[in-house]
Amino acid sequence: MTSQKKLQGLVAATVTPMTQDREINLAVIGQYVDYLVNEQGVRSVFVNGTTGEGLSLSIQERKQLAEEWVAKGKEKLDHVIVHVGALSLPESKELAKHAAEIGVDGIAVIAPSFFKQVNKDALLAFLRDVASEAPGIPFYYYHIPPLTGIQINAEELLDGMTEQIPSFQGVKFSDRNLLDFGRCAAKNSSGQFALLYGVDEQLLSALAMGATGAVGSTYNYFGKANNVMMEAFAKGDFCTAQKYQFCIQEFLGFVIAQGFGVPQIKAVMSLVSGIPMGPPRLPLSSASEEFVAKVRAKLEGLKNCSYHLL
Amino acid sequence: MTSQKKLQGLVAATVTPMTQDREINLAVIGQYVDYLVNEQGVRSVFVNGTTGEGLSLSIQERKQLAEEWVAKGKEKLDHVIVHVGALSLPESKELAKHAAEIGVDGIAVIAPSFFKQVNKDALLAFLRDVASEAPGIPFYYYHIPPLTGIQINAEELLDGMTEQIPSFQGVKFSDRNLLDFGRCAAKNSSGQFALLYGVDEQLLSALAMGATGAVGSTYNYFGKANNVMMEAFAKGDFCTAQKYQFCIQEFLGFVIAQGFGVPQIKAVMSLVSGIPMGPPRLPLSSASEEFVAKVRAKLEGLKNCSYHLL
Amino acid sequence: MTSQKKLQGLVAATVTPMTQDREINLAVIGQYVDYLVNEQGVRSVFVNGTTGEGLSLSIQERKQLAEEWVAKGKEKLDHVIVHVGALSLPESKELAKHAAEIGVDGIAVIAPSFFKQVNKDALLAFLRDVASEAPGIPFYYYHIPPLTGIQINAEELLDGMTEQIPSFQGVKFSDRNLLDFGRCAAKNSSGQFALLYGVDEQLLSALAMGATGAVGSTYNYFGKANNVMMEAFAKGDFCTAQKYQFCIQEFLGFVIAQGFGVPQIKAVMSLVSGIPMGPPRLPLSSASEEFVAKVRAKLEGLKNCSYHLL
Amino acid sequence: MTSQKKLQGLVAATVTPMTQDREINLAVIGQYVDYLVNEQGVRSVFVNGTTGEGLSLSIQERKQLAEEWVAKGKEKLDHVIVHVGALSLPESKELAKHAAEIGVDGIAVIAPSFFKQVNKDALLAFLRDVASEAPGIPFYYYHIPPLTGIQINAEELLDGMTEQIPSFQGVKFSDRNLLDFGRCAAKNSSGQFALLYGVDEQLLSALAMGATGAVGSTYNYFGKANNVMMEAFAKGDFCTAQKYQFCIQEFLGFVIAQGFGVPQIKAVMSLVSGIPMGPPRLPLSSASEEFVAKVRAKLEGLKNCSYHLL
Repeated sequence: MTSQKKLQGLVAATVTPMTQDREINLAVIGQYVDYLVNEQGVRSVFVNGTTGEGLSLSIQERKQLAEEWVAKGKEKLDHVIVHVGALSLPESKELAKHAAEIGVDGIAVIAPSFFKQVNKDALLAFLRDVASEAPGIPFYYYHIPPLTGIQINAEELLDGMTEQIPSFQGVKFSDRNLLDFGRCAAKNSSGQFALLYGVDEQLLSALAMGATGAVGSTYNYFGKANNVMMEAFAKGDFCTAQKYQFCIQEFLGFVIAQGFGVPQIKAVMSLVSGIPMGPPRLPLSSASEEFVAKVRAKLEGLKNCSYHLL
Repeated sequence: MTSQKKLQGLVAATVTPMTQDREINLAVIGQYVDYLVNEQGVRSVFVNGTTGEGLSLSIQERKQLAEEWVAKGKEKLDHVIVHVGALSLPESKELAKHAAEIGVDGIAVIAPSFFKQVNKDALLAFLRDVASEAPGIPFYYYHIPPLTGIQINAEELLDGMTEQIPSFQGVKFSDRNLLDFGRCAAKNSSGQFALLYGVDEQLLSALAMGATGAVGSTYNYFGKANNVMMEAFAKGDFCTAQKYQFCIQEFLGFVIAQGFGVPQIKAVMSLVSGIPMGPPRLPLSSASEEFVAKVRAKLEGLKNCSYHLL
Repeated sequence: MTSQKKLQGLVAATVTPMTQDREINLAVIGQYVDYLVNEQGVRSVFVNGTTGEGLSLSIQERKQLAEEWVAKGKEKLDHVIVHVGALSLPESKELAKHAAEIGVDGIAVIAPSFFKQVNKDALLAFLRDVASEAPGIPFYYYHIPPLTGIQINAEELLDGMTEQIPSFQGVKFSDRNLLDFGRCAAKNSSGQFALLYGVDEQLLSALAMGATGAVGSTYNYFGKANNVMMEAFAKGDFCTAQKYQFCIQEFLGFVIAQGFGVPQIKAVMSLVSGIPMGPPRLPLSSASEEFVAKVRAKLEGLKNCSYHLL
Repeated sequence: MTSQKKLQGLVAATVTPMTQDREINLAVIGQYVDYLVNEQGVRSVFVNGTTGEGLSLSIQERKQLAEEWVAKGKEKLDHVIVHVGALSLPESKELAKHAAEIGVDGIAVIAPSFFKQVNKDALLAFLRDVASEAPGIPFYYYHIPPLTGIQINAEELLDGMTEQIPSFQGVKFSDRNLLDFGRCAAKNSSGQFALLYGVDEQLLSALAMGATGAVGSTYNYFGKANNVMMEAFAKGDFCTAQKYQFCIQEFLGFVIAQGFGVPQIKAVMSLVSGIPMGPPRLPLSSASEEFVAKVRAKLEGLKNCSYHLL
């Protein structure tokens, strides 16, 4: 299986817009697509992932969202990747099958994380069973040990995936372990797969270690700035790349110190884009007004700096 | 709301029997019920919990299992408690509604654990929303921070639950923090709710701290021995209680040192009961043959000791 | 080697009184001894341990403190146990030798914890080398995995210690793992060694599991109440024991929720005893005035309850 | 205070040679110096740190080692940095004073880590008190949260150190958190201090984020290869830099998977350099012969690869 178009550059891990009643709000997806493409220069999305509260939604809701992103993204977005991971294998398979039917550009699967004593072979078998429901669709493994608690190196999984999953096309690598990341990159010498870094606040370090792109929530609103950074890096203009990275870090360091989870991401995105993302679904609760006020002030401060983030 | 019958004593956290294809095997539930009642003296069960791989099953499978336990347990079991927790609130509500419809004796809900930054009020709201789908059914909160990573004291939640959830009837407390447990017990001076301890290997310590019963996987096969221990404790025969506890600990310390998760629990239960529990579902993998051989030898050794576990 | 007098009951883990300049204040040790004996009914002490900031002191200071406790405790205290553990083996040996020379009633050693990859045999060899510098002095192993991060079961170490350390006399067990604790107790059927529990806030649960006594910081000021609890437990008056335990837990749960470390312990002890314990040494900083005010109010509240803690 | 010579490039975190009796072996330090300079191209050393088992030695031994490195390094080494951190402030101060007296080129201090509830101001006060004993000696803060468990961002400490410690000259940053690292780098725009990365296996990522040098144990034997990598990076030859990094990662990934602590580092250094480093001191135990055999085979394999590590 080969993908027609290679996944590269920035991928926005989309938030799921919700109404005040915490029900999914499909009505603003079209506007969201336009905002990403026109304002942020981001043409690929990762739907129903961690940022999108995918695991907090019902199977039915996840299907509806996937359908809407595919529909509204048509001829506008390059890649609509849909996360189909679930704790339950039958549910994950059902989602993969549906994703293939509606013509997504890729599916991604996180390690099921309720049990922590998962071993490599069993995880591979799980991923393979899901991928086989969508044999024609590029498959991405979503590696995020800090969240799942499943401590299996991506590099160890890589050999198995390239052998056992014909549709394997890349890894979303959300971990600070750049030894593991570098070892994946060493196996990607001819660029045969996508190596997408997922710790947004230190992307530059991963570019140096062989990242071919990035997936993350901050590309929803810092897409433009990160695109400039990636271009500078690609041209060998290290000085500019670092300056953008440090400016991005100033903001992210600030919000992380306040506690920066999905509710806060939704609040920042609403603030920057003007599109109402709404509250998160339970068990998450809305970002505080104090947080929003602080972020607004911080963003104002950053607008005046020479490296424009927004 | 008041329950007709008070939940007390031992509750077996049931494993989910599976075929070699890792599909649920409803055919042996009847035999399982008889084994618990006749061989172990255990007349209450906790279905679709951690031990039962509840979160690895589809919604449909969870419903089927609940129905089968209710049907086969009729007039044999005292309490069929069905775990209806899920990462997704709509799914958890759907399961609660179904449980009420089929007439279970109680529902239990674990904290949704994909996101770790869950606060007390949001967790309470989540639990309340689920409970309200089954208003006539006793509600139990399933507290297990070592597995969920959600670090909110049960004692803090207790006040909220007694106020906001009319059907609240107890806590399954699976943690070693006996300060938190004792503070729950201090609020249970008139025995108004069930305080069920869930760290099987140290049950005696929780009885001393006010436990009214216990829920755990080891009561599938050590029910008899634990019943003797609980009776000795109740009579003030501390010496006998300790001897049983230490004998149980010898076995559990042994298997825990080998790595003792759901696959191993299934293997032990198959071995002791003779009823085939089958392999676990992915992402878990079967216990090794080496483990089974070691357990068989260890159980043989224990049979010769003066405090009969089996 | 046999100790003339068996270590039993409560042992106060003493704080180290300091001047406002954070230098050790030997002048109040005599008063401290009288307070423990006369007001708290506690006649054994554990000096230079965690509570005593032993590892924050110089070797010379640790020796001076040990000497002062031995001198002032003469004919008043039953046991002066001196903690002689250190990260450095030569320093720990030097302290053990000194302790033997000044005639302490016991020495204790914590696992050296800078490196976490310590294995059982190496830890045993470390303990043995220290113990052999004080061959005539009862040796206690200080087990506290939550602080050291060294995850070796006490029960595994026990066999080695009884064989290799002739002066071995007991364990200070500061962990919530009551499986491990119970397995130690099972090996102590004839009461040949002291099994001293060290998680003060849940002592009752450990008494049920075979504790022969307790060592902890709260016995500096809650000695009396804990003595009543232990006596009630020994008489089989479980109801009284639980009521005292729950009352103690109400206070400890309250302070633990505020953050309860050595600085706070010093503040509470100063408040209750009236003896100035002073600030902690760097890198610790003094408890806040807000904390002290809250504790004062909480203690007032408890004075009115039927189970007098103070 | 200004240092005559700027600390740059690679710094070897030296192991402490020991005899078979686990006593320090000063006799081989001269040979060690020559090996680093002549065979590895490394002219700066970090003595008595984690790799050097500094905290396992007595104060007297630490002084002897510091003296020997200063003596043998004269006119051969550029920088002899001596780690003077200790759990006890008076001991750390004594070591700092001694280091200044013997004319070291820098002192470094790790956060005292027995207590975990250390706050920023108290840590700063501790560091300042030590630094003030050696006012004319460049001071480096040794930041290693994965080992100390003290979770205070280096970036937060930086402001305090530059203000309160006139001799402050840099940070040894041993953490994967490259957000924190980048924020330190952003404050070092004019290169006023040394920002030395300490996670050897991912050095390239830190160079991209603003590292001015590196301190680590692997530079004892991979100094040459890392020097080539750093030069390639400095020249903008990213391709070569990555290839060296990946080759280094292949070895380090291999040994880390076996368990790679100080005993193993000593074994590798003995093997590569031919200088006997001896066993570690208790509580550490020697690397297994199996480990040594595996490493020997792995190094043989790497010798044949195009990027020569040795």
